[in-house]
Amino acid sequence: MNIEVMNGLLTPKSVAVVGASTKPGKIGHTVLMNLIDSNYAGGIFPINPKAEEILGLKCYPSVLDVPDQIDSAILTIPAKFVPDVVVQCGEKGIKGLNIITSGFSEVGKQELEHHIVELAHQYGMRILGPNIVGVLSNSDKFNGSFAPFLPLPGSGSLVSQSGALLIGIDAATYLRKVGFDKLISIGNMSDVNFSDTIEWLDQDENTTCISLYIEGFKDGRKVIEAARKAKKPIIGLKAGVSAHGAAAAASHTGSLAGAAKIYKAAFRQAGIIEAENLDNLFDRTLVLSLQPPMKGDNLLIITNGGGVGVLGTDAAEKFGVPLKYAPEDIQAELKKYMPPFGSAKNPVDLTGMADTDWYYGSVKYAIAHPWVDGLVVLYCETAMTDPQEIAQCIKRAIKDSGVKDKPVTISYVGGEKSEKAMHWLLKNGIPAYGAPDLAINAMAALNEYAKIKEAVNDLGEDIDNVDKQKALEIIKKARADGRNALTEIESKRVFEAYSLPVTRSELTTTKDEAVEVAEKFGFPIVMKIVSPDILHKSDAGGVVIDIQNVDGIRKAFNEIITNAKTYNTKANIHGVVVQEMAPWGTEVIIGSVNDRTFGPTVMFGLGGIFVEVLKDVTFRVAPFSKKQARQMISEIRGAPILAGVRGEKPCDREAIANIICKYAFMIIDLQDEISESDANPVVVYEEGNGLKVVDARIILKKK
Amino acid sequence: MNIEVMNGLLTPKSVAVVGASTKPGKIGHTVLMNLIDSNYAGGIFPINPKAEEILGLKCYPSVLDVPDQIDSAILTIPAKFVPDVVVQCGEKGIKGLNIITSGFSEVGKQELEHHIVELAHQYGMRILGPNIVGVLSNSDKFNGSFAPFLPLPGSGSLVSQSGALLIGIDAATYLRKVGFDKLISIGNMSDVNFSDTIEWLDQDENTTCISLYIEGFKDGRKVIEAARKAKKPIIGLKAGVSAHGAAAAASHTGSLAGAAKIYKAAFRQAGIIEAENLDNLFDRTLVLSLQPPMKGDNLLIITNGGGVGVLGTDAAEKFGVPLKYAPEDIQAELKKYMPPFGSAKNPVDLTGMADTDWYYGSVKYAIAHPWVDGLVVLYCETAMTDPQEIAQCIKRAIKDSGVKDKPVTISYVGGEKSEKAMHWLLKNGIPAYGAPDLAINAMAALNEYAKIKEAVNDLGEDIDNVDKQKALEIIKKARADGRNALTEIESKRVFEAYSLPVTRSELTTTKDEAVEVAEKFGFPIVMKIVSPDILHKSDAGGVVIDIQNVDGIRKAFNEIITNAKTYNTKANIHGVVVQEMAPWGTEVIIGSVNDRTFGPTVMFGLGGIFVEVLKDVTFRVAPFSKKQARQMISEIRGAPILAGVRGEKPCDREAIANIICKYAFMIIDLQDEISESDANPVVVYEEGNGLKVVDARIILKKK
Repeated sequence: MNIEVMNGLLTPKSVAVVGASTKPGKIGHTVLMNLIDSNYAGGIFPINPKAEEILGLKCYPSVLDVPDQIDSAILTIPAKFVPDVVVQCGEKGIKGLNIITSGFSEVGKQELEHHIVELAHQYGMRILGPNIVGVLSNSDKFNGSFAPFLPLPGSGSLVSQSGALLIGIDAATYLRKVGFDKLISIGNMSDVNFSDTIEWLDQDENTTCISLYIEGFKDGRKVIEAARKAKKPIIGLKAGVSAHGAAAAASHTGSLAGAAKIYKAAFRQAGIIEAENLDNLFDRTLVLSLQPPMKGDNLLIITNGGGVGVLGTDAAEKFGVPLKYAPEDIQAELKKYMPPFGSAKNPVDLTGMADTDWYYGSVKYAIAHPWVDGLVVLYCETAMTDPQEIAQCIKRAIKDSGVKDKPVTISYVGGEKSEKAMHWLLKNGIPAYGAPDLAINAMAALNEYAKIKEAVNDLGEDIDNVDKQKALEIIKKARADGRNALTEIESKRVFEAYSLPVTRSELTTTKDEAVEVAEKFGFPIVMKIVSPDILHKSDAGGVVIDIQNVDGIRKAFNEIITNAKTYNTKANIHGVVVQEMAPWGTEVIIGSVNDRTFGPTVMFGLGGIFVEVLKDVTFRVAPFSKKQARQMISEIRGAPILAGVRGEKPCDREAIANIICKYAFMIIDLQDEISESDANPVVVYEEGNGLKVVDARIILKKK
Repeated sequence: MNIEVMNGLLTPKSVAVVGASTKPGKIGHTVLMNLIDSNYAGGIFPINPKAEEILGLKCYPSVLDVPDQIDSAILTIPAKFVPDVVVQCGEKGIKGLNIITSGFSEVGKQELEHHIVELAHQYGMRILGPNIVGVLSNSDKFNGSFAPFLPLPGSGSLVSQSGALLIGIDAATYLRKVGFDKLISIGNMSDVNFSDTIEWLDQDENTTCISLYIEGFKDGRKVIEAARKAKKPIIGLKAGVSAHGAAAAASHTGSLAGAAKIYKAAFRQAGIIEAENLDNLFDRTLVLSLQPPMKGDNLLIITNGGGVGVLGTDAAEKFGVPLKYAPEDIQAELKKYMPPFGSAKNPVDLTGMADTDWYYGSVKYAIAHPWVDGLVVLYCETAMTDPQEIAQCIKRAIKDSGVKDKPVTISYVGGEKSEKAMHWLLKNGIPAYGAPDLAINAMAALNEYAKIKEAVNDLGEDIDNVDKQKALEIIKKARADGRNALTEIESKRVFEAYSLPVTRSELTTTKDEAVEVAEKFGFPIVMKIVSPDILHKSDAGGVVIDIQNVDGIRKAFNEIITNAKTYNTKANIHGVVVQEMAPWGTEVIIGSVNDRTFGPTVMFGLGGIFVEVLKDVTFRVAPFSKKQARQMISEIRGAPILAGVRGEKPCDREAIANIICKYAFMIIDLQDEISESDANPVVVYEEGNGLKVVDARIILKKK
């Protein structure tokens, strides 16, 4: 990212409005007016060959006629004129183009869009848009958009993929009293993408946290990369997670890999905090822009009402920061600030009798106590206390404690007095919310942020003993046969090339050969038909398990071939695979998709009913560290089964983590070839005893 | 419920304030002032033996000195004086007592509380409280509380178990612009309970819906009964659902029966709509007090912004009203109200170009179309349209459509103009919310309400062939032995007395007897130790399964007895049970708890890992209809397993529904005896082939 160019694009020192209009109501007029109204201090150059002057500013026929330097051009002209103007801007030495104009890829004109990006890049320019509302920046007093005013000032910045929503949010900042420094409409993302804006906002000194409204990333992998490196908190609201209108999936792993699940995984890997909805985006932006992370899990709640205390306790469990009883010393000290019928356990209930002294004393003590990692103060408006005084004493208590590295959030349940007190707290850097669960949810975001940043790890695991060439040969051969699905045995050979432990198996074409292989492997043996034309081997009578001796092998061979030929007279039969029979163990599934947005992505879950009925699976975008693989194993609902239930010994989870990482390496290494894959089932044994891939499936990318 | 007495208590025509005080700040002063300030038109009689006049009202030494009739007395005197005053009030012929005074059961003084209730009942009086804030009613201009003012007027009424929260909510009504007609603080519920207030509010002509803030019901069964009968929507927020501070459970089913799950079941059976948090209580009260139920599942969204449309679509799926594409005729008609790049599919995106004409036309057409069961209109503030005009045209469109039986909710994303428009809509009976998911959640509440009311069924299933006497004899015998746990075989005999199909089993004390029984049942056979001192039979080597012949029976008998004696030399051994071995099938668990709040409650779930690891179980308070039993079977996560997965035939779900109903009957019939029970596993066969209870366990109530 060229900082100078991006600065020119997003915080220009001078700007041209190409398509500036004399007619009020036209976007080319509105943008010019907004620049003036926002008290923008830089040069503003309206470009319109037919006008002399607009809104008191001298007009120029083209950017080339402007004598001064121009950092950025805002384009409001019709799409067909854009390419020429891009060239003029390039010739003029402009750094960035904010293309408000619509009528590009969003209406099917991808080529025109590619064309203008190519032109811009020839001159080293970057394009924001097209099809955007524009850029708004409080710290630059710059409203380079057709949204009517700058948002309420704040310290977070928002990047929105929906222009309409950005305008709505702009207005809503005043209503919700949650401000932003910058609003950036990202439009069609023909050039400047979420990853660019994350990278740029991360170094912008006026932004403390980055909020994203996302409908879909263009290059998910780049966004993960940028977010991983970011030093500021990032909050993402992903819209479009419902099944309504989603495309039907083609394969097993594919059918389990909804956009919502993969985005969730990607957010986690990238260290992006998720917002559940629009309100939550505001609420979490507020807290992450104002408060430090909650480093630890000990949450203390101080309240003046049992009711809100109970609601807060419920919310704490719901949002992943469940309450624990406070240690004895805290309880003993806090008892000084409540009547005998109060409770110091946690939630700390100062009761309705709580005045400013009690709030002050308890908050000041609690925030400074080493056990406390985060403090939520709840206040329920009473007839006896003044909300504003409570706000002031909380602020004073925090200040007097001298503590700066622990987070505090507040909730007020009450009327207009409470609202004023909350706004006062906000202005003083303490996020306050209108209900206890919101204050808890905000605190939970700070806890998630601390944890997520700890787990972010940008290194995939390197693996040894890889024979990529061998894998490619197997794939090449299948392609030469006109197939894009590998047979089980081919898939296993590819897995083997990446050191995945598969059950030993060999393709045999005669009874004698089968006997020979079986004797080599040892009994019991499983035999299966191998034919690209028979996908459902069991249905075709093409599988015999638990074969105990040589006679069984001969019998099974005949049976399988006969059944297969009956099942599909035209089937191309490669032969019969002879396979060692894996001893009984716990079945898991590992699979992959090559996601349109994120590329190679690994799925993990428990096998059988867990995956088929409960869809109890989890994802990670490859590559990722072994730490992430271990997280996958522990985050599925069926995790206790792998840990050992009802006296059973734990499964070899470390072996699972290893194979997941190898799998990730494989699908990255072969990402040009593999579209989807399953290792299903993988049978896992007791700790220390490893695992075996029993069945394998690879679907190739269409070429 | 005596309506006249309840009216006297909650909407009195005249009221005495016993403990009226001359000192501002005292509750006895505040209440009097509030009655005056709320313009209460009835008689107000301050009672204070030491004052002549307070706040311009003549004072009386006692209620007996008041010459006029008094409907209700509000008590603010110290607890110790309450009993005498109750008697005086009774003598005076007062109907109801609002006891604000605290210092009763909430501080351990249960006896004093019982005493005053007994006294009141002797005079036919009802008590609200003690330990309440009071009662507030807009339609009666009556603030009989120490909350500072009447809430914003509205048509729902709220009953709150937290006084502090009630005061907070009172103030918050002005902030949120969601009003209430009545606020009732229910306090310790010594007498008037949630069921009474539900019953009374259901007939109150100024209340259209009933909101409850619940920490815990006293008699859950009565509440279910009252709610079932109510004709108005009821919304419940249950606080205290987290595990923090909850008592540890004693048994298997008990450990799975958290308060949250049983309340959820009870709400469903009672037809109470759940609120997730405080905001949701406000939001859902608003919609249920203003809009008709959504009778059907076809939700249409009309929006002017893709972004909010997508967020709305996500919310629709999340809240259980997923979108479907609109039929062709709707799409064709709605295309008239949008530019070519709009979408009429659903969500219907009129685009940012949408003006009042398009909103008017599309809303008027859509709401009247028979396919549409509910309509959500989303608006994102733009620079081009006026929020207020949009509001007015939506209102006009609904009116002009002539449709009155279909619900509409609205969402505005925007600033202060949008807020004003939303308030205008609210005043005009159309609920409007500040984010798309909130409008969808409100619509989902109307959909839930229609469904929940349909499923409410107050009839339990009667069952034939019950031998209660036999069951009681078995229980009596165990109690005579000093036991409060029945053995497996005793438990099965009790189950049999209620026609539950158990595996045939008999207690034997000699090898010959065992052989005789086994031959009668037929092989294979299972044998198990029977001893009240050996709970974990397998651990003691006390179980042998799959016995195929007479020799096996003799061998197993010796083995089991020897193992048991070795395991516990002091064990009282009843003998060995010989049991038919149930063929393999799908294992489910049915169990019961005798819940403190709700009484006998049935649990159902899939067996094994599903219940032990995933805790995939569901509850119903007994008795309930077979319809509810069928719901239980279909609402567990593992339901597809019972329906048949991977080509397997469906289980005999009708047999499960039958046994669940019989189980419910049994635990109701024996509720004085059974504390907890498990039928685990119950093996279920293919459709039409029934099921068998394989193991049984009954824990008796301590007597």
